[in-house]
This record gives sequence, C-alpha cells and structure tokens, in this order.
Amino acid sequence: MRIAVDGMGGDHAPKEVVKGCLDAINELDVEIFLTGQKEKLEEALKGYNFDHTKLHIIHASEIITNEDKPVQAVKQKKDASMIVGLNLLKNGEVDAFISAGNTGALLAGSLFRLGRIKGVDRPAIASVYPTSKGISLLVDAGANAECKSRNLLEFGLMGSVYTDKVLGKENPSIGLVNIGTEPGKGTPLVKESFELFSKTDFNFYGNVEARDLPNGIVDVIVCDGFVGNVILKLTEGVGMTIMSMLKEILTKNTKNKLAALLLKASLKAFKKNLDYTEYGGAPLLGVKGAVIKAHGSSNAKAIKNAIKQAKVFVEREVVSVINKEINRIGDEENGEPT
Amino acid sequence: MRIAVDGMGGDHAPKEVVKGCLDAINELDVEIFLTGQKEKLEEALKGYNFDHTKLHIIHASEIITNEDKPVQAVKQKKDASMIVGLNLLKNGEVDAFISAGNTGALLAGSLFRLGRIKGVDRPAIASVYPTSKGISLLVDAGANAECKSRNLLEFGLMGSVYTDKVLGKENPSIGLVNIGTEPGKGTPLVKESFELFSKTDFNFYGNVEARDLPNGIVDVIVCDGFVGNVILKLTEGVGMTIMSMLKEILTKNTKNKLAALLLKASLKAFKKNLDYTEYGGAPLLGVKGAVIKAHGSSNAKAIKNAIKQAKVFVEREVVSVINKEINRIGDEENGEPT
Repeated sequence: MRIAVDGMGGDHAPKEVVKGCLDAINELDVEIFLTGQKEKLEEALKGYNFDHTKLHIIHASEIITNEDKPVQAVKQKKDASMIVGLNLLKNGEVDAFISAGNTGALLAGSLFRLGRIKGVDRPAIASVYPTSKGISLLVDAGANAECKSRNLLEFGLMGSVYTDKVLGKENPSIGLVNIGTEPGKGTPLVKESFELFSKTDFNFYGNVEARDLPNGIVDVIVCDGFVGNVILKLTEGVGMTIMSMLKEILTKNTKNKLAALLLKASLKAFKKNLDYTEYGGAPLLGVKGAVIKAHGSSNAKAIKNAIKQAKVFVEREVVSVINKEINRIGDEENGEPT
Repeated sequence: MRIAVDGMGGDHAPKEVVKGCLDAINELDVEIFLTGQKEKLEEALKGYNFDHTKLHIIHASEIITNEDKPVQAVKQKKDASMIVGLNLLKNGEVDAFISAGNTGALLAGSLFRLGRIKGVDRPAIASVYPTSKGISLLVDAGANAECKSRNLLEFGLMGSVYTDKVLGKENPSIGLVNIGTEPGKGTPLVKESFELFSKTDFNFYGNVEARDLPNGIVDVIVCDGFVGNVILKLTEGVGMTIMSMLKEILTKNTKNKLAALLLKASLKAFKKNLDYTEYGGAPLLGVKGAVIKAHGSSNAKAIKNAIKQAKVFVEREVVSVINKEINRIGDEENGEPT
C-alpha cells in the first residue's frame, strides 16, 4: 500500500512527521511518499537508518500554513506539500493521503482535486470521540458550520460506514445531538433530520443530549459542524482543566504527593484513555479518495497511527461502500436510487 | 423583601423546597410566599419550628410537570403552583419568584404573565458556568434554540448587567462562542453578531472557542440556546464521567484506597467547586420581573441560595437597569434610542 504524507503540515513538522513515517515503514506494510521541501525533509531524515525503497521524497516548494485562507491557499499555492500530496492521490500514484496541516485547506483541496462522491451533497470531517466505554465517532467535526437536514443524514450514513469498516463496530447506532431526547425538540434542522433518519433502515437511536456523549451512549454522533466543533473543543477544554486542577491537588503538599505516587500507574492508564495520539486522525468522508486529517499537534506516534488508519480505510474500501450506500438511499431530490 | 417560591416544582418538591425556604427565613431578611397544594405543603412543614409571619402558604390546586408541554400547560393549568406564583409577582404582591419546575413552562408563563422588557426581542435564560477561575455567566442557556444576531446582542447586554449587578464583576468581558477566534469565522449568525457587538461600547472580547470556556476566558459567554444547552450539558457530562472514572481508580485496590484517604480533604474542596447548589439558579433575563429558575434536582441549599440570589436581583434593580441599557443602545429597527 502506498500512502502520501504531507511532510510540512502540523506544529511538529517535519521532524515528528518524518519520524512517524519511519516508524510506519518499519512496523506496517506500507510505502510512504513524503511531500515537502526536499532539503528540509532530508535534514529531518538525517541519522536514521531505513529502507530507502519504502520512503520517497516528493519535492514541493510551498507550504500552506494555518494562517492561510483555505480556498485562496489551495488556488494560489499550487506547489504546496498538501496540494502535491492530493495530486498524487488523484492520479492514482498513492492510495491515501495524510496531512496534519490547515484543516480548511485540506478540505477545500480535497473537494477541488478529488471531488465529491456522487450523491453526497457535503463531505464532512469525522473525529474519534473518546468516551468512558471506548470511542464514538463524531460527524461533522467542523467542515460545515451550516447544514440542512440532508447533510446530517449523509453524515450519519458516512459515519456509520466508517465506524463499521474502520473502527470495527458492526451495525453502529446513530444519535442526533439535540437539546432534549423527545422527538419534536430542537431547531427545524434537527427536527427535519430526525424525520429523515426515521424513514431509513439505519440503526437510528434518536435524539441524544450532550450530557450523555461522554458515556458513549451512541456509536455515531451526528450534528452540524458548528455544534460538532464546540463539542470536540469543549470536551478537550473541560478534560484539560480538570486534569490541571487535579495536578495542582496532587502536588500541593507532602501528603498529596505521596498519594500521587501511590496512584501513578492508575493515573497513567487513565490519561492514556484521553490521549488523541492513540486514535490516529480524522477522516474526510464523502470525497473520492482516502484523506486523513491528523491532529495539528501530532507527534510521531499520532502520524504512525494515522497511517495505520489510512491503510484500513483503503483496505475496507470505505469510499466505495459510501458510494453504494448513498446510491441505495437515493439522492436528495427524489429520494430514489440514483 | 417578599419572595414567592413554587412549592411543587423540582424533583425533590415539596420536601427540599420547604426546607430551603425555612433556612432562608432564618438566615436572610425575607418573607416567603410558598405556592402549591396546601395539604402537601403543610405536611412537609410538620415538625419544623418557624416564624409563621414570615412564611405564607398560597394554595394552588394544580401542578405543571416536566412532561407537560410548556405553552399548553401555561394556558390550561391556570391554578398551577407556578402560575399562581407568577401572578403574585405580576400583581406586585411579591418582589421575585423562584421555581425548580418545568423550564419551558416557566419561560412561557413569564412571557405571558409578565411580558418582555420594552426593546427586548427575546428573553433568555442565563446560567452560571463554573470555571477554574471562579464562574462565568452563559446566555442563552436554552430558551431560544434559534436566534438572530440582535438576540445575541441582547443576551450580551443582559448577561453583562446581571454579571455586574448580581455576580459583582464590574465591566465584565463578553465573548461570542465561535469555531475560531478570528473575525469572519463561523455562521452568518455569528458573523453578524460579531459586527453588532463591535459597534457597541460593551466590553466585547471577541470570538471565543469552546476549548477556553472552562478556563474562564470571558465573564459573559454569548451563544444561541441550542449551543448554550450543549455547552452546559456537555460540561456536566464530561465532568461527571471523569469524576466517576476517578472514583473507580480511587477504590480499585488497597494502595489506591490509601491514596484516596490522603486526598480526602483536597478532593472535597475540588468537588465543591463544581457543585451547582452553591450558585443558586438561572435567572430569566428580559422579562418584566425577577424570575429565577432553580435546578430541577435542587436540594434545600440550592433553593436557599436561589432565594438569596433573587434578593440581590431585586435590590440591584436588574430589570430596570436592563430596561435603561436596552433603551440606550436603541431598538432593533432603527438602532436609535426608543
């Protein structure tokens, strides 16, 4: 399997990205195409022994930064590491593409270069959501701030396929984020979406309140990208705040420090649960190709796990299954198979 | 000061409500008008010694439950404890009203009986939001799932007045919940609201991401009621999930149990920080009267604190200050003082 990786994207690029790629070629059966400024990538590769037939540098002179405006950057920086990687995917030279760079640009670039799966109105970003029971998948994580009900229906369908094929949960349950559990609650968008889901044969759980998400009440969490972004960032924020308050407690005095020592192993396991690097990246669902957005602050482990995830994404043919499922439920206008 | 309390509203009514009222007449300079089924209230008061000139039972035969549809309940159950309480407030027989009952009904009832402050398009529910630095105020907590930009502007104004007058923070900062901090991010609603806030002389901080809310980045958190409801419930959910995971760790084995013992005092203080009963209830802002929604699961302490809060609300003339401020910024149509 050949996978392209954006060598210049993310807070710790190229160093950690390069390291993650090297770990991947050692541990997984993959061939990596690293895009970016040749000199910088070679510099980062210095000192490592690796199989040169499994890692190729594809030079790209430009870089899209987080400060760049997505659509503009994609149009103007044609030789950016991200665009070069997407072109490799479009031309069939690789099977998947991973970037820890500008999320909006990756989305816009994927739309322009790869296009949408037929029948999908709006591709979405799906993010793993850690819960006390394991993980759920949240769609949309922020690609579409404004949505219509058909979009939410597609998010549910695509999230369900990904959860089944890549996360390995058969017939996953789908929940619609709402401000109450009763049907008829919420905004017109959510009410209409509830109606649409109810007419499908999906494993639709119904409305879910934000309070129950951390308990893993459903496998696939569906909401518009504004709410999804709030959910992800708030969960991170509350988690970090509580952890730092706890840390303060555990270092406050000798008695508490002793307690911290006793709890060391347990707390380590607890923190691992909340560690995003364990879960790889966020797949773009609905575009014609396997594209994974790795976390902006990805370290080597996160990059390696994103590569592993991309491999499963390709092997299980997620794009083609989404295509088939979207066709099965019919398109937006007539509700019949296209 | 005379305060009416819904004796039948909330999960622990009338027992805890009655107890909270008794604590209030002992500790605060207030006279309580308890509305509800006379027999049940007298039964709950049995065994307590108290000053009968300070607690009056106002009989109301009906009860609005959480299962009732708000508008319908308000129209049909004219002799409900909640409606009788609102009537006392409307007729000037009391200075404030508190209920732990059906939130939607309390909002609808307040709108029908008391009406809106002139110039306020949509009254909102404000909720205290516990942070690592103390508390922020979130408006709207769920009264208005769908909003226009003028509504968010009013939420900011009213939240600011309440934070200044009742929570005692002078010139509080106002933040707009968004999916990025840069101006120009987000939905049309949020973009327009950003523009409106920018034209005022409010202490407008700008956009805030959900990640930063638990750190107390702003004093007043402004968002539509759908997002506000998600923020409040998710914060509660993440907090509860982490606490229950910690509890599991602390009781796992003898070593951890010993650590728990060492941490007992510190953990108690930590939990107190997150305890909603400390903060009273959620005020309805924008209606012509002091109405406080106490938490549905309020115990006696929460009720007493809500009464204390209602007292400050009245003393600091929050309704009249909001009236003055709304008039100052002008009404919706012409942007000039009405």
